Amino acid sequence: MSEDRHLIEERISSDVVYRGSFFELRRDRVRLPDGREAGREYIAHPGAVMVVPIADDGRLVMERQYRYPIGRVMLEFPAGKLDPGESPFTCGVRELAEETGYRAAEWARAGLLNNAVAYSSEGIEVWFARGLAAGTRSLEDGEHLDVCLVTVAELADHCRDGRVTDAKTLVGLLWLQQWQAGRWSLEWGPAP
Amino acid sequence: MSEDRHLIEERISSDVVYRGSFFELRRDRVRLPDGREAGREYIAHPGAVMVVPIADDGRLVMERQYRYPIGRVMLEFPAGKLDPGESPFTCGVRELAEETGYRAAEWARAGLLNNAVAYSSEGIEVWFARGLAAGTRSLEDGEHLDVCLVTVAELADHCRDGRVTDAKTLVGLLWLQQWQAGRWSLEWGPAP
Repeated sequence: MSEDRHLIEERISSDVVYRGSFFELRRDRVRLPDGREAGREYIAHPGAVMVVPIADDGRLVMERQYRYPIGRVMLEFPAGKLDPGESPFTCGVRELAEETGYRAAEWARAGLLNNAVAYSSEGIEVWFARGLAAGTRSLEDGEHLDVCLVTVAELADHCRDGRVTDAKTLVGLLWLQQWQAGRWSLEWGPAP
Repeated sequence: MSEDRHLIEERISSDVVYRGSFFELRRDRVRLPDGREAGREYIAHPGAVMVVPIADDGRLVMERQYRYPIGRVMLEFPAGKLDPGESPFTCGVRELAEETGYRAAEWARAGLLNNAVAYSSEGIEVWFARGLAAGTRSLEDGEHLDVCLVTVAELADHCRDGRVTDAKTLVGLLWLQQWQAGRWSLEWGPAP
């Protein structure tokens, strides 16, 4: 928007300074709004999807997984990175099945979150899933995680008490509470 | 916990593969729970603080800032990285004053969030501030951002409609709503 011209930075150049297994670290030169130059270092990320899976008894299908950069086991909603060319919806269906074994009859897109705006391009689409049927999971080689069922009240207590600190999962609770209170709506559609 | 032994990864070695302006990119070798080895690439981050500043009329002090990795202007709560040796509380007081000019009479620590558990060690402490007095801000060289006042209802609408996608700000709304509903409590203390 033209009224944002005093805020916007323009790319001058862009270099990959490190190529990781699933991201690139880029270092760009930018033109600041005041005309001067500055550097911007950031992760170029393929994007991801988080699924909030609601079982017929109202409990949530969640995962306990060791997160090496944090150094502890974390309680999270299922999530995973987009494969090249994959749609977020297809990714959500795939990740839910691979990591938990569950298939869902109905899906709804809640929204998008950007989890590290200062240094990552990552966007995580938030999807809800219900009408769950249990099946067999197929973890990737080297992937280790537990699946568990948690009530919304238990999840809220864990978030309040600091046992849940994963940002996407906290945003999942926000969406759950707003939807259950009838303030935010979801448009459900069938699985493909 | 001993019952998590089947999830925990142990460090074998750790190398800095890129030294950024405010983070290191590290590549570690780890021992998986099944005894095999794997690589882990992640940002070693100093940590950060977000402040939810509540004016006497109930409006929130927020910022509009261009986020280069996302490529758009975003509405966010004030936040910033810890300086070396700085406590989160001191960082929150400093960032609020530098970026918005506001000083707060009362402060409360809400919790912690980890915003990119797959590839960053970053933890963001969430603080609330009230009893605000306006003053002069002192932006860092090259920093460009607008300060604005937003009601909680406006913020909630922006989050629902997808205009706010910043994860820490969405978590700020979760805390605000839970606290205002009397479900999550804050212990307020004086500014130093």
